[in-house]
Amino acid sequence: VSTSALVPVVESVRWSPDRRAVRIVDQRRLPAEFIERDLATTDEVCDAIRTLAVRGAPAIGICGAMGLVVAAARANAATRDALSGFIGDSAARIAATRPTGVNLAWALDRVQRAAAGSAGDPGDVVEAMRREATAILDEDRAMCRRIGVNGVVLLSDGVRVLTHCNAGALATGGIGTALAPLYVGAERGLRIQALVDETRPLLQGSRLTAWELARAGIPTTVITDSTAGALMQRRDVDLCLVGADRVAANGDVANKIGTYPLAVLARHHGIPFYVAIPTSTLDPDTPSGESIRIEERDPLEVLEAGGVRVAAEGVSARNPAFDVTPAELVSAIITDTGIHWPPFDFAHGV
Amino acid sequence: VSTSALVPVVESVRWSPDRRAVRIVDQRRLPAEFIERDLATTDEVCDAIRTLAVRGAPAIGICGAMGLVVAAARANAATRDALSGFIGDSAARIAATRPTGVNLAWALDRVQRAAAGSAGDPGDVVEAMRREATAILDEDRAMCRRIGVNGVVLLSDGVRVLTHCNAGALATGGIGTALAPLYVGAERGLRIQALVDETRPLLQGSRLTAWELARAGIPTTVITDSTAGALMQRRDVDLCLVGADRVAANGDVANKIGTYPLAVLARHHGIPFYVAIPTSTLDPDTPSGESIRIEERDPLEVLEAGGVRVAAEGVSARNPAFDVTPAELVSAIITDTGIHWPPFDFAHGV
Repeated sequence: VSTSALVPVVESVRWSPDRRAVRIVDQRRLPAEFIERDLATTDEVCDAIRTLAVRGAPAIGICGAMGLVVAAARANAATRDALSGFIGDSAARIAATRPTGVNLAWALDRVQRAAAGSAGDPGDVVEAMRREATAILDEDRAMCRRIGVNGVVLLSDGVRVLTHCNAGALATGGIGTALAPLYVGAERGLRIQALVDETRPLLQGSRLTAWELARAGIPTTVITDSTAGALMQRRDVDLCLVGADRVAANGDVANKIGTYPLAVLARHHGIPFYVAIPTSTLDPDTPSGESIRIEERDPLEVLEAGGVRVAAEGVSARNPAFDVTPAELVSAIITDTGIHWPPFDFAHGV
Repeated sequence: VSTSALVPVVESVRWSPDRRAVRIVDQRRLPAEFIERDLATTDEVCDAIRTLAVRGAPAIGICGAMGLVVAAARANAATRDALSGFIGDSAARIAATRPTGVNLAWALDRVQRAAAGSAGDPGDVVEAMRREATAILDEDRAMCRRIGVNGVVLLSDGVRVLTHCNAGALATGGIGTALAPLYVGAERGLRIQALVDETRPLLQGSRLTAWELARAGIPTTVITDSTAGALMQRRDVDLCLVGADRVAANGDVANKIGTYPLAVLARHHGIPFYVAIPTSTLDPDTPSGESIRIEERDPLEVLEAGGVRVAAEGVSARNPAFDVTPAELVSAIITDTGIHWPPFDFAHGV
């Protein structure tokens, strides 16, 4: 499950060479600086997650799980009881950094269960935890790659792909979700042109997606979010490919604000609109997008640009973080298990 | 043609109290600082236009015409021949600051013709020029107000109006084009809620439109350009109202990039999409939008935000300044002569 040397996809979370730390790419500094940071204590792991040095639900889960391991290893607990107390405390602190995400709690739980189920002395327990955290990382990498392999059949040589926000390697342990088919396509020699919405207000597109695609040698062009329509009108976009934060049982897609207008524009122009996700993003318990609560974020993110206040004082802003694209605007949903075509029915999983 | 004191609309270009200078609002400093600047020489006028202290085709034309007058008055020419030489030189320099715009050349020409057609000594010539420049300003103000009065019938109490870029008082000598119906509505006691697209890359919406609307007491909410779709989906937008840079004979509308996706989204949601323009923006000689050349601006505008580099090095950007909305997506075109409904035919004017 490694990436071809010809397509150098960034690894956003991995073990340090001596395995005594979690090595992350500091996403706060991108794209101005590419800085890798080794996290070795509970404090360092919590700080990295809280300050968005690590972001993307899968990457956060992996970082938390691996962080729990390296912190436990450094604790040098004399007894299993002492180690167990340390692990419980450390896991609770890490989990509290992002209480709403499901991946982080799930990954920490897996590592804690591995510890509880292992035989032997504290050193053996830590090794069992390390194997579990490595398994989580490896599974995520494999899942990303399967998304890529499943989705690449939708791409042809010379294809011009429009994406939004960052659903790439920086958000996962592997080669991403929406970007995975692009990386697999590039490995296979397809000439792919990426068009990247800058994705206001936080600019994950121009800051992160454009950076990781360009680093992998994929020709990348950034546009403002309001330019996509004009490019579709000129027939300069062949397809849209985005990730998702949650997909409801009926196929409705919650994703970064700005996804829904892309889907409407794609339909208006007869351009395919694809969504790529790991199966863990499917939520069979959510019947449709109507029951997805949309987080409203700080208006300041809209009233500022590049950290500079741009809007007049006394003006308000609305800043919904996500929008919901109805299933009828989605051409297909690519997962690690295959390509799903409409009508979608995920009420019983895939 | 003055604005009600209850709705204090900014005056972006006017005479200074002693009429020896052109008083402009410096739009480079907005919204952080409200600075009025008096321009009294050809150099000062050229500099203000070139650096975008004054922007918006009508405002630029008025500023150029009035600037030519104050510069000529200060020249203290002893003879008509000396004055005529000064005027020709000064007008050529002002016209060269924005060679592509039609309003500036047209307004300068009007003032020069007034000079050539006047009798008397140099002082009389300058007074004839001053009357003509004042007429240009007054005509623009009256035209804006007629657009407002014609368009206000489309607004109801409590209406939520989405606009894009700045087609307001800051772009004209009066109360704007797209914003004119909002100001007239506010004067008449309508409760209007303005939703303003921030309008990347140059943020004319959050910097300028939000500023002038809030200053006039109209409740104003800024959104990122990609949020409009989600608000329409939630039925939080009643209508769209935008300006235009050029309207073709068949009603196709060239306006700031991001206008076309709004029109597609409005149609998808059954929301009216209105365009407000002075009749001078109608171009009967352009049969349709296909023959409108779209200016591509510096990619750096997209790769930066708030003056800060945000995108990775090595990444390119596309930056079309305008897009074309086909006439079939336009619900009505409001001009100073009335409201024009589809099918549009401006081949012989209005």
